[in-house]
Amino acid sequence: MSELARLALLRRLLTTTPAPGVVVGIGDDAAVLTQGSGSLVWTVDTAVEGVHSQRAWATLRDIGWRSFMAAASDLAAMGAAPRGALSALVLPATFTDADLEELALGQAHAAAALGTPIVGGNLSRGAELSITTSVLGEAPRPVLRRGARPGDIVAIAGRLGLAAAGLEALGRGALPGSASMTAAIETWRHPRALIAEGLAAGSTATAGIDLSDGLALDATRLAAESGVSIVLDADRILAVGGPDLTEVAGLLSIAPLDLALYGGEDYALLMTFAPHEIASSFTAVGQCDAGDGIFLRLTDGTRQKIAARGFDHFPATG
Amino acid sequence: MSELARLALLRRLLTTTPAPGVVVGIGDDAAVLTQGSGSLVWTVDTAVEGVHSQRAWATLRDIGWRSFMAAASDLAAMGAAPRGALSALVLPATFTDADLEELALGQAHAAAALGTPIVGGNLSRGAELSITTSVLGEAPRPVLRRGARPGDIVAIAGRLGLAAAGLEALGRGALPGSASMTAAIETWRHPRALIAEGLAAGSTATAGIDLSDGLALDATRLAAESGVSIVLDADRILAVGGPDLTEVAGLLSIAPLDLALYGGEDYALLMTFAPHEIASSFTAVGQCDAGDGIFLRLTDGTRQKIAARGFDHFPATG
Repeated sequence: MSELARLALLRRLLTTTPAPGVVVGIGDDAAVLTQGSGSLVWTVDTAVEGVHSQRAWATLRDIGWRSFMAAASDLAAMGAAPRGALSALVLPATFTDADLEELALGQAHAAAALGTPIVGGNLSRGAELSITTSVLGEAPRPVLRRGARPGDIVAIAGRLGLAAAGLEALGRGALPGSASMTAAIETWRHPRALIAEGLAAGSTATAGIDLSDGLALDATRLAAESGVSIVLDADRILAVGGPDLTEVAGLLSIAPLDLALYGGEDYALLMTFAPHEIASSFTAVGQCDAGDGIFLRLTDGTRQKIAARGFDHFPATG
Repeated sequence: MSELARLALLRRLLTTTPAPGVVVGIGDDAAVLTQGSGSLVWTVDTAVEGVHSQRAWATLRDIGWRSFMAAASDLAAMGAAPRGALSALVLPATFTDADLEELALGQAHAAAALGTPIVGGNLSRGAELSITTSVLGEAPRPVLRRGARPGDIVAIAGRLGLAAAGLEALGRGALPGSASMTAAIETWRHPRALIAEGLAAGSTATAGIDLSDGLALDATRLAAESGVSIVLDADRILAVGGPDLTEVAGLLSIAPLDLALYGGEDYALLMTFAPHEIASSFTAVGQCDAGDGIFLRLTDGTRQKIAARGFDHFPATG
């Protein structure tokens, strides 16, 4: 069974009959519970070493930072302000006290960067390092994956493809010594959850998601939940990527558009807006139409379907 | 460094300067955040297979149930009503879809038994099964570990020592076929978080903790946080244990008082109350005094100090 099918299985088994006060349960970036006149937004994310982080490519401090930001990014995607976080750590027997201090400092620095206190947690012993971070926040108006309508503008805040380029460079071992590649590696090591951008967009966005798994896969998820199709403009996507993306793509011999579409872990935000209601830190890259699936509009005006795949591997180009 | 020292390290590194709206951070059963005129109470707990559960002794459905109840018990100890839970699972490659269904059913049944919806979660791949459950609730008046005063009555709701006896019997392999031992094993496999009891106690309790690690260790924690000593009455503890405890202790050749003091995982609640304010489902077992440490008052009136140790092993008695 695929991970998607397993998630569907869990959704079916774990979702009870409509529960009072639960606006959104399993299936969005975060859960939404009513609270007074506002909403609580609540998420959890696990980083397992070896799967999500290679210690050769990132220090424990980086790993602590990244795991915290990955969890907080789910709240950014909901237009929520984090109020606090819980950190549950599983530590292998070989993990030293100095290791623990480094990991905790990475988490503490990320928490401080977002102004989010870490208010509790749990310590367990296990076979491998895993870090589970739960973040709780509030949103005046939570932005869900469903809600985009035909005619809405699709817009992005943040970087595209840079983190994937940095990860790819680390994986190849030989690090080209350019400023843009250094920036790409730094983007992978130290992503930042776009909390302020998500909050600002919350008042007008019709739907939203964070691009943890890449634009192609996450836009497909938003389109499916909203019941729309999405047409992305290739030139605008490359413009969001900017000169850094073009340069690192060249150094890696990967098409920059492939990095932008299939590269994840930048934790950019994709949100949809009615025309003329785009939040100021977002750049339009396409629009919603009727139907389903996601498509790319090339410079020559032709349209092609985009495969809903993630950033697992990149075919090298000429 | 001991686990206690590691927790202190994390508390120091992760605790920021006083954060607005954070009443209780790292160090209690759960975090407490202000919310309107009430309080949000929020916890996380991880069960790692092999460390916290042996698959030979419990089905995956049992493991799902136990992990959920262990997390919810932290809320019971705070006098909180759970509003929802998030479940983050790390699954080994050998974990089948049928395994996942069993585990999820155990969690779903426990959630339903407490009327707590599971509103989200996370799926990851890893070397071993681990289950991290975060539970969020509300408390009109959260009960902390600190707050007990000299002269307060120490009282217990729930079972004592039975779960440890059940676990010990499973570990020894040979299961004596008695009704009380069956009940003990059932108590270990299917503990129940005492949510209603904790809520009812919340209006008068001065301090509280759940007995996940056993009466001796958890009473020591409450006493230390409150700055009091605690004197427990041996006869009253045995009375809470009841005939079942006496019988299973006999079958295992363990002193019943040892099971009651050092046996954890019953998820009983220990709370302190001013005299004449004890909640109805609680039974008085001792009282708070000035000073520190915890003591046992024997039938003959003598007092002895109780070691702050957990349920790791039981010395067999004659």
